[in-house]
Amino acid sequence: MSMDPILNYLDKNRDRHVEQLCDWLRIPSISSVSEHNEDTKRAAVFVADELRELGLHVEVIETEGHPLVYAETEQRDDRRTLLFYGHYDVQPVDPLDLWDSPPFEPVIKDGIIYARGGSDDKGQLYTHVKALEAYLKTGTELPVNVKFIIEGEEECGGPAIYKYVEAHPDKLACDAVVISDTSLYDEDTPAICYSLKGLAYMEINLRGPGADLHSGSFGGTVQNPGNAICEIVAKLKDEHGVVLIPGFYDDVLPVDDTEKEAFASLNYRDEVLCKDTGASGPFGEKGYTTLERMWARPTCDVNGLWSGYSGEGAKTIIPSLAGAKVSMRLVPNQDPKTIAKLFEAYVKDIAPEGVEVTVIDHHGANPVMVPRDSEMMEAGMRAMEKGFGKRPVFIREGGSIPIVGTFQSSLKQPVLLLGYGLPNDNIHSPNEKFHLENYFNGIKTTAWMFREATRSHV
Amino acid sequence: MSMDPILNYLDKNRDRHVEQLCDWLRIPSISSVSEHNEDTKRAAVFVADELRELGLHVEVIETEGHPLVYAETEQRDDRRTLLFYGHYDVQPVDPLDLWDSPPFEPVIKDGIIYARGGSDDKGQLYTHVKALEAYLKTGTELPVNVKFIIEGEEECGGPAIYKYVEAHPDKLACDAVVISDTSLYDEDTPAICYSLKGLAYMEINLRGPGADLHSGSFGGTVQNPGNAICEIVAKLKDEHGVVLIPGFYDDVLPVDDTEKEAFASLNYRDEVLCKDTGASGPFGEKGYTTLERMWARPTCDVNGLWSGYSGEGAKTIIPSLAGAKVSMRLVPNQDPKTIAKLFEAYVKDIAPEGVEVTVIDHHGANPVMVPRDSEMMEAGMRAMEKGFGKRPVFIREGGSIPIVGTFQSSLKQPVLLLGYGLPNDNIHSPNEKFHLENYFNGIKTTAWMFREATRSHV
Repeated sequence: MSMDPILNYLDKNRDRHVEQLCDWLRIPSISSVSEHNEDTKRAAVFVADELRELGLHVEVIETEGHPLVYAETEQRDDRRTLLFYGHYDVQPVDPLDLWDSPPFEPVIKDGIIYARGGSDDKGQLYTHVKALEAYLKTGTELPVNVKFIIEGEEECGGPAIYKYVEAHPDKLACDAVVISDTSLYDEDTPAICYSLKGLAYMEINLRGPGADLHSGSFGGTVQNPGNAICEIVAKLKDEHGVVLIPGFYDDVLPVDDTEKEAFASLNYRDEVLCKDTGASGPFGEKGYTTLERMWARPTCDVNGLWSGYSGEGAKTIIPSLAGAKVSMRLVPNQDPKTIAKLFEAYVKDIAPEGVEVTVIDHHGANPVMVPRDSEMMEAGMRAMEKGFGKRPVFIREGGSIPIVGTFQSSLKQPVLLLGYGLPNDNIHSPNEKFHLENYFNGIKTTAWMFREATRSHV
Repeated sequence: MSMDPILNYLDKNRDRHVEQLCDWLRIPSISSVSEHNEDTKRAAVFVADELRELGLHVEVIETEGHPLVYAETEQRDDRRTLLFYGHYDVQPVDPLDLWDSPPFEPVIKDGIIYARGGSDDKGQLYTHVKALEAYLKTGTELPVNVKFIIEGEEECGGPAIYKYVEAHPDKLACDAVVISDTSLYDEDTPAICYSLKGLAYMEINLRGPGADLHSGSFGGTVQNPGNAICEIVAKLKDEHGVVLIPGFYDDVLPVDDTEKEAFASLNYRDEVLCKDTGASGPFGEKGYTTLERMWARPTCDVNGLWSGYSGEGAKTIIPSLAGAKVSMRLVPNQDPKTIAKLFEAYVKDIAPEGVEVTVIDHHGANPVMVPRDSEMMEAGMRAMEKGFGKRPVFIREGGSIPIVGTFQSSLKQPVLLLGYGLPNDNIHSPNEKFHLENYFNGIKTTAWMFREATRSHV
């Protein structure tokens, strides 16, 4: 088949495709803020309506939280099936005053759309819709069966998608899951992500005296939970950034020589790290490069810390309470439940006398790794090469997309992370953006993917 | 002279003395809350008016903050002079819902007044006014010259009193300063405090990345200031509670054997500590008893700690900022400025790489020690023995009353801390109280003090 009609159609409809994306971005579908529940639902209906108009069979599935959208083209047994996943909900927008333009009034400047959800994930997800449109509107026969499962609780950690995937493996059966919710390696380097970190998110709470005490009257007589929490957290890692929790590294899949070479060939420069983070320099586990630590080594970070008085000036108290939120990013084959138990046991073991210790396991996510040598992964590589004009590199990710692990275990098929965003797209931050070039190349990549996924191209 | 007319007068006027104190306690003179500025001034005028009605020469001295009240009886060269200090301002009342009755509507129950300011310091200060009233209303010749210097910024750390004392040593010249703003040792044991701790109140601020980072994207690559602040604080003390700042103990006046014996004879029980603090047990510097640590050993305590996210649930960030408020209670002969410098140097020395460190010296106070063998101290012991019916013990205090040091250095005379409160009077807390028995005994003590201070009683 010739791709010319498809590519011509995409060229001619660029402006409309941008305008329609902007319409979707105008819906403030912040899933974690209940006053936006109606907006969030509207964002689901928006994409459901569009898929229905294209002729797909569409279901808007009510859940205990925000609805799921399931859609499918006519399913034929003689074709392979691709399942596309994405999410229509977005992160909150605070702090609003740091945005250069209102988050839900998309602005296009120098070929870049600025809006909440631009890159994460409406913009990326919409590429799949528009690629499908190109086939259907040009009367080109679709080379694969297409399914969509779209959720609205990705940013608020809702359970609906997990339950649904686990309950409907037959309905969602496919030859590969395609997700565009990650990034290119950099502006010039398309990439496919083959491994995501998992997560164990813990909270430590300490109670010392029954109430805040006068630090003069009682200083030196009882344990201070503010000091105690510091002692505990300080013992989580040594001065070289090595995690000290016994057994923490036991199940870690080592970075092998092939990966080390592949990472090194990307020439990641610490100046980029400093520019992206505002940090004065790199810091982390001794013996590994920055990219190895970012992608392939487990971490242990304080996310929050509190005790006593943090206002202006001075208050002379011995606090009654202290606490810390600590999360560990996990790599294959660490198990979040095992790590959570090791963490709790260690914290209780090292806690100084005089404090009551409670450890909360907030939530966990499994690390995932996708084989790099599957037939469908090869198809993804070819599609992306055609869409972006350059052979993609393999990358890993420090973040977690927990649903990937659920897809793997429930559907037993490769998951392809074809990322069309950029690492500096300000997702979860003010001035989120999405580059139009990546949007158009992403649509083309998906359009090619429909063809490359067929048996004839193996 | 016979004390009978005085003591009879006091007996007869008990109820009125309580009613008048209640009137004063009804004025919400919270000095740190500007909307109470008028109330605070009213509390000053209340005591000024009363002293004027008794025939004293009174000045209400305007300052940049709350007014000072100076008052004096007729000053005769052939009499010794006692300068009484106290404060008419009170602590804030939050959390209001923990009060059993409104803080500014005094309630008397089982011989106890419940009200903010009851013990700290209106109730204690008022004993001196009522003792003086007894002499003046009964026509008894006053055996000493009396001066009052009363402030309204003790609870908000205002500078007016310091400036005034330093600027007016001649006006305030006396043979002893008498302050009732401390406590009996316990319900059955009157006490005179001869040493107060000083203070060095510091704040550490750390800056890591330029903004909060996604802990997945950047975990393991840059220093986390939340972890770093814990490392720093954990190195301030060892596991036995010994402060590790080099030079910290250099100037500490050791607890001598006489003091050790005197402390031990008080039979302080850790059950009392646990009851008073709600702590599970004592904790502190190894090698010292609880009372030695509370009264005579310097401390180092976290008063506040913060970094990143401390709300509900989970937020996966590497914080940009972290900080801690740390105060050290100092003993003679430690110098707060020297200690502040040692602290700053040590913190900067031990700070891990990758964070920018700022250290703020919020404020300091000198530790003080009053000789226990002066003629005026002996007079105070006799007065208190007569007022409370039992020989007082010598105690020290873990808290600071910075003005004591200023009195010592500016007036060069003994400062007598005749405390009429109880350690569990809930000062600075909900349900502040003052026992009527201690109020009446305090008035009697001051009345006796006027007599015991004369030369004829040496």
